[in-house]
Amino acid sequence: MRYLTRWLKISRCKLMNETELIHQIIADLGEQTQGETVMVGPGDDAAVVQWNTTDNIVVTTDTFVVDRHFSEDTPGDLVGYRCIAATLSDVVAMSARPCYVTVALTVETNSQDWVFEFVKGVRTCCAETNTRIIGGNMACGNKSATVSAIGLVPDSTYVRRDTVCNGDDIWLTGTLGATKLAISANVDWQPKPLEELLQKRDNCFMAAYFLPRVRIEFVEKIRSYVTAMTDISDGLQTELEHMIRSSNLGARIDVEQVNMWDRRHKAHTLGCDDSYELLFTLPKAKRTKLEQNASETNTECRCIGEITSTRGVKFFDNGQEIFPVSGYSHF
Amino acid sequence: MRYLTRWLKISRCKLMNETELIHQIIADLGEQTQGETVMVGPGDDAAVVQWNTTDNIVVTTDTFVVDRHFSEDTPGDLVGYRCIAATLSDVVAMSARPCYVTVALTVETNSQDWVFEFVKGVRTCCAETNTRIIGGNMACGNKSATVSAIGLVPDSTYVRRDTVCNGDDIWLTGTLGATKLAISANVDWQPKPLEELLQKRDNCFMAAYFLPRVRIEFVEKIRSYVTAMTDISDGLQTELEHMIRSSNLGARIDVEQVNMWDRRHKAHTLGCDDSYELLFTLPKAKRTKLEQNASETNTECRCIGEITSTRGVKFFDNGQEIFPVSGYSHF
Repeated sequence: MRYLTRWLKISRCKLMNETELIHQIIADLGEQTQGETVMVGPGDDAAVVQWNTTDNIVVTTDTFVVDRHFSEDTPGDLVGYRCIAATLSDVVAMSARPCYVTVALTVETNSQDWVFEFVKGVRTCCAETNTRIIGGNMACGNKSATVSAIGLVPDSTYVRRDTVCNGDDIWLTGTLGATKLAISANVDWQPKPLEELLQKRDNCFMAAYFLPRVRIEFVEKIRSYVTAMTDISDGLQTELEHMIRSSNLGARIDVEQVNMWDRRHKAHTLGCDDSYELLFTLPKAKRTKLEQNASETNTECRCIGEITSTRGVKFFDNGQEIFPVSGYSHF
Repeated sequence: MRYLTRWLKISRCKLMNETELIHQIIADLGEQTQGETVMVGPGDDAAVVQWNTTDNIVVTTDTFVVDRHFSEDTPGDLVGYRCIAATLSDVVAMSARPCYVTVALTVETNSQDWVFEFVKGVRTCCAETNTRIIGGNMACGNKSATVSAIGLVPDSTYVRRDTVCNGDDIWLTGTLGATKLAISANVDWQPKPLEELLQKRDNCFMAAYFLPRVRIEFVEKIRSYVTAMTDISDGLQTELEHMIRSSNLGARIDVEQVNMWDRRHKAHTLGCDDSYELLFTLPKAKRTKLEQNASETNTECRCIGEITSTRGVKFFDNGQEIFPVSGYSHF
């Protein structure tokens, strides 16, 4: 059985790539994306709107489509969990605490058993993250799920992804590369119960792939002093490019410092991972505080490089420049 | 060409109908749908969460799928407008003012022209309703759009749909039945530009179908005294059943009082319309105030019946009971 399929579709012909398409859509939407209360509009991990003088609401939406993000025979509970975790990750990447989700599920009429498995996965991830499911929609069609999430961040302490500073250290949580291994292994993999996989996220790449961690407590500790943050949803290289895009800066990554499930797949891991780990920058002077906060919240966290004044993203492995496989594009 | 298709799919075999499925899902989600700040959870038009001591946030999500809610060749701008208006309608039906939307769009890779038309429709409806597009998602697959909307209602003046009182008058805005006519006519219809249709909503059923009105100003005037409210998304009969479900009450409708595009299609119009008009109840003593507020906001509005102590929804046309065609079920 084949549980994951998105990698097979990467190279098909495109008229305009995903980033170009999204930029053109945002340009076309014009002033309808702006407003006095819109602090961060479309284009970052999530939007930020001002609700009152002290609080900001963080809002995001994410879609997961059969044969693109999961295969037809992926157990519903694993899809449900991963859809919620991946969406909450965007809220957390703005440094907000996720509070509420809505889930719009489209399935074929004969998929009721799968639906109830999916609901179990949703419920499990929401319970773990103390998030409430406040609404949803059921429609009939090819399987897909769209999750929208709302979070809260007090006192305008939200963190954008494009506010890096020259000389900042670049940090990364967790371990990358579960995607590549999961894709390779899934033909023969017999899916395990959700409860069993939840216990194995530190040592089983399938568990790590399907059940990404949502690092809520960690982010609440670091949000006052990190300079920029995003999550890894389209490959480390792509995320770094988003971080430096609006500046004249660059990034240099020491590949030896990036935790990986399997170092034989370096080029794929740097280019195409979607582990939803957090990537963030901070001044060198904050390193001790960061290490203390990581320890307090039991968060694996490594300094993997530096923001530089030389434009572009460069990866060095034992002194040699290496080139990741192109990051995932949804179009 | 055939622009609308959902009616063709209504009668396929179902294991569990839509209402049963949604109730079972909400039951399965259990306490993850509840919480101190959740004033209205899943099951109404939209959810209501308490943000601070005076304000409530209203949240909803809606999915529109090709070959179910629109056909492959429906112009993108008409689909975009209708998706936004239909979703905002759920926020307005809780008596809130819509503020923000996110739009998750799934399309085939060769659909870029359609995407930009869709974006135009989204932008037009958002501009008309003073709503901001704060986020979105692009994915690759069969065409579908999921819109999530966030609105604001001050001082806990939100209006649920299940809080009807015995003896309340039942009121309805606008004219029903554009759906039936649009379905019948669309084989031969040459689509008109969005700008032209916007001028024809009062006298062209195709314009009324694709461009539902979002009655924001009207709702802000009446929310302090209406007892219950919903919008017509699955047929008048189904919506009335939702309104009385949790009480021991019933509803009696005088069909002559329901404005219709074409009275020859009464049974369909009462059972299957999705015009997103507002259906609400209020004490008889408020009739004068309602008529005044309708006049001030130029809102066509009729008293169509009464909440009764006899359980069930009954329709009478010139004294004869009539039976609507079963309402639309998405499953």
